[in-house]
Amino acid sequence: MNYRMILNILGWMLKIEGACMLLPLVCSFVYTETGECAAFFAVIGLCLLIGSALTAIKTKSKVMYAKEGFVTVALCWIFISAFGALPFVISGNIPSYIDAFFETCSGFSTTGASILTDVEALAKSMLMWRSFTHWLGGMGVLVFLMAILPMAGGGNLYLLRAESPGPSVGKLMPKIKESAKILYAIYIVFTLIQVILLLLGGLNLFESLTIAFGTAGTGGFAILNSGIAEYSPYVQYIVTIFMILFGIDFGLYYMLFFKERKAFFKSTELRVYLAIILSAVLIIFINTYGMFKTVEEALRHIAFTVGSIITTTGFATTDFNLWPELSKAIIVLLMFIGACAGSTGGGIKVSRIIILVKSIIKEVRTSAHPRHTIKIKMNGRLVEHETVRGVNVFMAAYAVIFVAAMLIISLDNFDFTTNFTAITATLNNIGPGLNSVGPMSNFAEFSPLSKLVMSFCMLTGRLEIFPMLLLFSPYTWKK
Amino acid sequence: MNYRMILNILGWMLKIEGACMLLPLVCSFVYTETGECAAFFAVIGLCLLIGSALTAIKTKSKVMYAKEGFVTVALCWIFISAFGALPFVISGNIPSYIDAFFETCSGFSTTGASILTDVEALAKSMLMWRSFTHWLGGMGVLVFLMAILPMAGGGNLYLLRAESPGPSVGKLMPKIKESAKILYAIYIVFTLIQVILLLLGGLNLFESLTIAFGTAGTGGFAILNSGIAEYSPYVQYIVTIFMILFGIDFGLYYMLFFKERKAFFKSTELRVYLAIILSAVLIIFINTYGMFKTVEEALRHIAFTVGSIITTTGFATTDFNLWPELSKAIIVLLMFIGACAGSTGGGIKVSRIIILVKSIIKEVRTSAHPRHTIKIKMNGRLVEHETVRGVNVFMAAYAVIFVAAMLIISLDNFDFTTNFTAITATLNNIGPGLNSVGPMSNFAEFSPLSKLVMSFCMLTGRLEIFPMLLLFSPYTWKK
Repeated sequence: MNYRMILNILGWMLKIEGACMLLPLVCSFVYTETGECAAFFAVIGLCLLIGSALTAIKTKSKVMYAKEGFVTVALCWIFISAFGALPFVISGNIPSYIDAFFETCSGFSTTGASILTDVEALAKSMLMWRSFTHWLGGMGVLVFLMAILPMAGGGNLYLLRAESPGPSVGKLMPKIKESAKILYAIYIVFTLIQVILLLLGGLNLFESLTIAFGTAGTGGFAILNSGIAEYSPYVQYIVTIFMILFGIDFGLYYMLFFKERKAFFKSTELRVYLAIILSAVLIIFINTYGMFKTVEEALRHIAFTVGSIITTTGFATTDFNLWPELSKAIIVLLMFIGACAGSTGGGIKVSRIIILVKSIIKEVRTSAHPRHTIKIKMNGRLVEHETVRGVNVFMAAYAVIFVAAMLIISLDNFDFTTNFTAITATLNNIGPGLNSVGPMSNFAEFSPLSKLVMSFCMLTGRLEIFPMLLLFSPYTWKK
Repeated sequence: MNYRMILNILGWMLKIEGACMLLPLVCSFVYTETGECAAFFAVIGLCLLIGSALTAIKTKSKVMYAKEGFVTVALCWIFISAFGALPFVISGNIPSYIDAFFETCSGFSTTGASILTDVEALAKSMLMWRSFTHWLGGMGVLVFLMAILPMAGGGNLYLLRAESPGPSVGKLMPKIKESAKILYAIYIVFTLIQVILLLLGGLNLFESLTIAFGTAGTGGFAILNSGIAEYSPYVQYIVTIFMILFGIDFGLYYMLFFKERKAFFKSTELRVYLAIILSAVLIIFINTYGMFKTVEEALRHIAFTVGSIITTTGFATTDFNLWPELSKAIIVLLMFIGACAGSTGGGIKVSRIIILVKSIIKEVRTSAHPRHTIKIKMNGRLVEHETVRGVNVFMAAYAVIFVAAMLIISLDNFDFTTNFTAITATLNNIGPGLNSVGPMSNFAEFSPLSKLVMSFCMLTGRLEIFPMLLLFSPYTWKK
């Protein structure tokens, strides 16, 4: 294990986190929030101090293997969450450290689950930091590091793989640095467009930025207790469209803008993703008939909710906890499906679902006609055996962590639906669940142990399980 | 597709079913239930008539392929359930055919889910038939056919595979007929021992037989509204022990009694199965502290419930719906785990869980040390790649059917927990779930559509999914 290299990268991460806190710091100046200003100053100083100490460590070798890649990514995310929670605690906005840690894990992992009962009581700069963590976590903090830092060694691909969502991560460009830059460029441009469209809708810069951060990262933290419900239909439509856009594979955008346009429209995953959204909206529309005043209102709220849940954003304009059971069951199903691989969204990912369904069809066809050789294809290309195996192991590990986490939080004795959907909502990085963790409720009532378990779930879900599993596995640390 | 052969086997199945109805017929004589007597007479006549017509069809070829095996098994189970439901309807004991079909599917699939609100109102001979279907379904109706019929052709192995539970079915003996005979011999002897022990406990023959049938098939139909709660602790202990015994691989019993005794005790699956039972009892014992009067009472009810649920029997002595959430979550988890492969129990099966967990460990170890080659082993032998793949496809198909069924029954607008556990309880062949389908409730309130969906789930779960999938797949019927 190349400890020096890992500590080095951790140091860089802390420095970047300190730099990122300049945004909420400026915000605290603008709104003259002196206590918050001091808190951010202090934490920025701490990050730079510890960060510099770590980056000063001389690395003998820059070589990294898969193992180091996984462990580094897992440690980085725990570190930035641990330090990112400090401003909330120091400023007194969230007095309990465990609560602040939960909230920051929820931010970076783009979950959007909150322990706050009154979001509006928070200082503006704190709300800005809270939403900004979504944006940072969305595209990945290590991808950002790779885009800006001159790093050598073959370890970058492992870092990219460990941090990027989806069953198989390809490089867009021969050089990882270039790939990372392109991803962030698309990400920034899309976010800017959304900010401008929200400003045009009459929101101020603060509102536009926080909502755009929450949308781009598919996070879901809002700055009002009512979520997105009080904004104009225009804003709700903009957010709906951008949530769905940010749930699409960024590699496809690269194809669309810079390479073959056809590949974008021919993507199996994109087509299935859009088909699922349309079907879900249609079924829920029929199922909730009579619950909304007009057809426009119904379609707006339903499209918003479906977009919000399948992309694992978690913004709410309406309380889907009050919908009929079929609609609720569809919402829970969408939570598991999640967005496209290579997007900022969480969940199992549409491409994994496609591979699983295709493997069932393959099995049935092979049983019916043993002499036919059937292979699993996607986008016209063969899906490698290794990818299918990876999807299967992912699903197994996912199920085991789901069950273990649910058993632990059951100790708090909330009802089955609450416990089940709380883990669904955190492991898939959604935010709200059903019953006591419904869209108009929050996670405040859980015990500190449950909050820690769910913080772990959120980071584990964002990193797609294996980095965290490796970090806590004794095999990793054996020579 | 060898249609003639399939119809032939269906004919034999109906004849056997008619013969099996002699038991409840005798029962109706003994208790002088004339209406029921007439009903059984009529249905026996019908079974023999149609059965004889079908077996009279001349088969040109006795060759069967995997496809025919799957389809035959699926059709057989649907047929025997459809005909087995007739006595209930004709006698007026269960006036609605859909209800009677649900009840019979629940019987043959050894689920034990009931639409009856008052079991005790049923005629004794009907209760006998209801419990006897458990016993017939437990070891498999086609296995029985193979044991007694002189069948030629290579198709028998496919039939055995399609009907027997577990990730990989091995033959005990070179000849399938011999294997089937041994399985039934062990099954009959174990059932007889339990009947004798129950008679010694003061129960009459009717009670002893029905309870033993429910235990042996891991079914769960009781003849009292209170389930097994009113019987003596002695009876409850006997049932607990036999439920756990019938949840063990019958191939292991063959090893124990006729071959190497060591193989029995060294079985990984058996050890894990017993370890899960012990851990579950221990955790629930601590979690339910204070809910029972004495330690003996607590341990008795908890061991009974854990044994009943993990073996997917579904008998109840206490209402676990009233337990704390952790205990309930464990119960639901046990429902998914299920019994050992090759037993009469349902669920995912312990051996599949072991293979899944081992594949996760393998992945973590390979990621940590890519140069080590790690293979999945069980009972000291290598688990073949094909078996692991089969487990994965099974899990995927299982999940898809689970979700689809749950969405449909959500139309009835019961709460999430009820819907989730209703499908859990039927697809895993348990019987009771939580909330509105808890151990002291029943499935009567569901709509006819939901009852049909859950009947499908029960048969699909019993046959481990693929026979039913193939039956309804267009690929099977394409030339």
